[in-house]
Amino acid sequence: MAAASNFFSIVAGVGAGTGRSVALKFAKTYPVVLLARNPQNYESIVQEIKASGGHAIGIATDVSSPQSVTNAFSEIQKEFKDKKLAAAIYNVGGRFVTKPFLELTLEEYETGFESNGKGFYLFAQAVLPLLLDAVPSSPHPPSLIITGATASLRGSAKMASFASGKFALRATGQSLAREFGPMGVHVAHALIDGVIDIPRTKDWPINGGAPDGKISSDAIADSYWYLHTQPRSHFTQELDCRPYVEKF
Amino acid sequence: MAAASNFFSIVAGVGAGTGRSVALKFAKTYPVVLLARNPQNYESIVQEIKASGGHAIGIATDVSSPQSVTNAFSEIQKEFKDKKLAAAIYNVGGRFVTKPFLELTLEEYETGFESNGKGFYLFAQAVLPLLLDAVPSSPHPPSLIITGATASLRGSAKMASFASGKFALRATGQSLAREFGPMGVHVAHALIDGVIDIPRTKDWPINGGAPDGKISSDAIADSYWYLHTQPRSHFTQELDCRPYVEKF
Amino acid sequence: MAAASNFFSIVAGVGAGTGRSVALKFAKTYPVVLLARNPQNYESIVQEIKASGGHAIGIATDVSSPQSVTNAFSEIQKEFKDKKLAAAIYNVGGRFVTKPFLELTLEEYETGFESNGKGFYLFAQAVLPLLLDAVPSSPHPPSLIITGATASLRGSAKMASFASGKFALRATGQSLAREFGPMGVHVAHALIDGVIDIPRTKDWPINGGAPDGKISSDAIADSYWYLHTQPRSHFTQELDCRPYVEKF
Amino acid sequence: MAAASNFFSIVAGVGAGTGRSVALKFAKTYPVVLLARNPQNYESIVQEIKASGGHAIGIATDVSSPQSVTNAFSEIQKEFKDKKLAAAIYNVGGRFVTKPFLELTLEEYETGFESNGKGFYLFAQAVLPLLLDAVPSSPHPPSLIITGATASLRGSAKMASFASGKFALRATGQSLAREFGPMGVHVAHALIDGVIDIPRTKDWPINGGAPDGKISSDAIADSYWYLHTQPRSHFTQELDCRPYVEKF
Repeated sequence: MAAASNFFSIVAGVGAGTGRSVALKFAKTYPVVLLARNPQNYESIVQEIKASGGHAIGIATDVSSPQSVTNAFSEIQKEFKDKKLAAAIYNVGGRFVTKPFLELTLEEYETGFESNGKGFYLFAQAVLPLLLDAVPSSPHPPSLIITGATASLRGSAKMASFASGKFALRATGQSLAREFGPMGVHVAHALIDGVIDIPRTKDWPINGGAPDGKISSDAIADSYWYLHTQPRSHFTQELDCRPYVEKF
Repeated sequence: MAAASNFFSIVAGVGAGTGRSVALKFAKTYPVVLLARNPQNYESIVQEIKASGGHAIGIATDVSSPQSVTNAFSEIQKEFKDKKLAAAIYNVGGRFVTKPFLELTLEEYETGFESNGKGFYLFAQAVLPLLLDAVPSSPHPPSLIITGATASLRGSAKMASFASGKFALRATGQSLAREFGPMGVHVAHALIDGVIDIPRTKDWPINGGAPDGKISSDAIADSYWYLHTQPRSHFTQELDCRPYVEKF
Repeated sequence: MAAASNFFSIVAGVGAGTGRSVALKFAKTYPVVLLARNPQNYESIVQEIKASGGHAIGIATDVSSPQSVTNAFSEIQKEFKDKKLAAAIYNVGGRFVTKPFLELTLEEYETGFESNGKGFYLFAQAVLPLLLDAVPSSPHPPSLIITGATASLRGSAKMASFASGKFALRATGQSLAREFGPMGVHVAHALIDGVIDIPRTKDWPINGGAPDGKISSDAIADSYWYLHTQPRSHFTQELDCRPYVEKF
Repeated sequence: MAAASNFFSIVAGVGAGTGRSVALKFAKTYPVVLLARNPQNYESIVQEIKASGGHAIGIATDVSSPQSVTNAFSEIQKEFKDKKLAAAIYNVGGRFVTKPFLELTLEEYETGFESNGKGFYLFAQAVLPLLLDAVPSSPHPPSLIITGATASLRGSAKMASFASGKFALRATGQSLAREFGPMGVHVAHALIDGVIDIPRTKDWPINGGAPDGKISSDAIADSYWYLHTQPRSHFTQELDCRPYVEKF
């Protein structure tokens, strides 16, 4: 087993919530690559990590574009050519479209799959060879962790776009867990069932305004780290998380 | 309630198995439109239906092409301008790709969503307004019936393409059931868990070669007809079907 | 295949709703045995069946009492010694207790399992040998059909008693489907997700009082008959049913 | 928030595997009460905990006997009258009966519910008031953690007894999570899908004898501790765990 300093991690889909918290958490152990379409989404996080002594780079990436993903991973290989990949987190939300089906354009419908199907395919194609390569030496089983949602299990009215994307993501994740688990790569899927507590949701009247009624993104980051550090004799494929006051 | 002769039905995805049986079954009551990419897939069925006194037309359609679907429904509107749509069946299988994930091309991965996500979106956009229009007069609640598979519930190893498409289809179907059910349209999803008994599968050693060890497509057609004839006070959203000897 | 007149059926758990409708439906083809704890629950149904030319008997039975079940099946064997059992329906609801967990007595908690676990065990032990015996000759695969509920899939707050019984019933039904399906007996489970339309629920403000907003028990009976008549190449193990306006 | 030393924990169902590991894990922070029918099952664990500087007591308890549970909790109250209950783990396996249904006695069938339904009811009735009492002061949300199994989700052939018990346990756990979660008590259910690595299973040819092909009970203990330490803004209600090579 090699020192953690020989490894790095990647977080795709960073913004004010889960992505930032996950990046900060994993940065305590590994250098982190942050992917987001818009550099504004990762720049301050890169600074934050550096300020606390960690190592991070951001790469502007559209995960649903093959060319963009290829470019990002070329850069990653250059930057971390001496390191192996210990953990890859797919936290791409995608556009959340909710409207009556007959008003939903094809482009809007497909946006769910673009982000959560095609985007995840491209990301997984890029990271799985690197994760496999890290199996013999990684301090913890190399991990591919996926952010799901309520809509991963339930196709609600007016949510065909988002739910079809999240269902497709879960299907693909399950398939990868079954194929790559026996090779030592841990593929896990987290069902986030609730609203994340970020500045944008500050005034949303969730769960009657109960204290802690929104999900702490730091707690999600803890769960992802816990998943990453599970030994191969005990892989969790799926867990849910929701605030104590959430109806389910 | 109007006579059944004022109504028609559409089956998308016809071939030697489920599509043919469903078309023959519904043709006993309604004229049927058969959609398939390749006219060879419907021509003999159209003949069969006509030979037994029914009415059927076939339209070469690629359900994942907006233009092709638009053309098909223009033709349908012309042909059945005096009739309302009582039932629409989405039975598009799509290409069944099974290969190790790292050998799966993007185009192969997307084929699952093309057929079962995008194709269903286009079909549903075209039929739902017609089904809604039939609610007040249809002899049975106008129905949109969807063919699912084992892979609708389970992402098996090496099945990321097919499973992501079937998961997306199920998500979209659930969403439509929740949105359009209260308007009187019955959206149902059948989980076909087994191999269909057709000439192509004749020699497959399924279930140890047990008699009736493959699913009779006529029996599937009966289940779709049963779903269609349920009253609105008792809609089945999902049922499974498998041979008595199938492991599950 | 023998004539239907050589067969009979049993319905356990009859009252004003599902049980009565199922009995009337199956009585059109087979003589029916009605089991209920209280003869008042079956007497008028027996009359109704006889009045329309069918054959029915009622036997006062407590399905959670081994002795009572033994007595009932002795009587059944005597009455139908020349007939084989084509269909057995387990429709025992049990007491519906809903209260805060800390106010729930052990006796109340156990009532769910008594009705839906133990009672079903006793019933299944009695009917399965008879159903197996009918496999070679029955006009349709001999069937054991089970009435489930929303609570078969979901343990709601304050519903620990009912849900634990319905979960146990579903578990046992699945186990029997997997064991006896390959022997030719069809074990099916119906998820009734809604309020049944009976005199007692007439004024319940269900689904905003929408017309047909409660489930027609005759429609449930139709679904049970449909399940019974499926061929062995197409067994449905589980279907749901709910009114078109039901939230789910 | 009070110091951890003002709190204690209870593990019901201890033996060579999960129970022992969970007790050792929680004993690092809290005194632990060990419940098992047979003192032989906890005596050496109590010694182990004491030897490493922890505090533990064992109480011979039959969790499916009301009187036995009452006695145990009297003793617990006496022993820990100044402490509050931070965590209660229900890890009672029960007798694992697997036989053809028609050879299964009523007593054998009921054994599943006795252990996992009735036993859990009695345990939950005893611990929930104590957990509620600890909500304001506990360092982590007071937790009730339940050990499930593959059979919690699947009624396999010849497993009616065990599966009906585990389904009932899951139903009751869900119901409690929904009722007590909003009051601040964390009710979580772990799906253990695989064989535990203990002396008794040493030579079982699980997963082709792959290294780490059985579940480490210490890893399960880590997952229970992780569940216990989640904040109330992020409760996991259910997670699965299985070895990397397990088929699922």
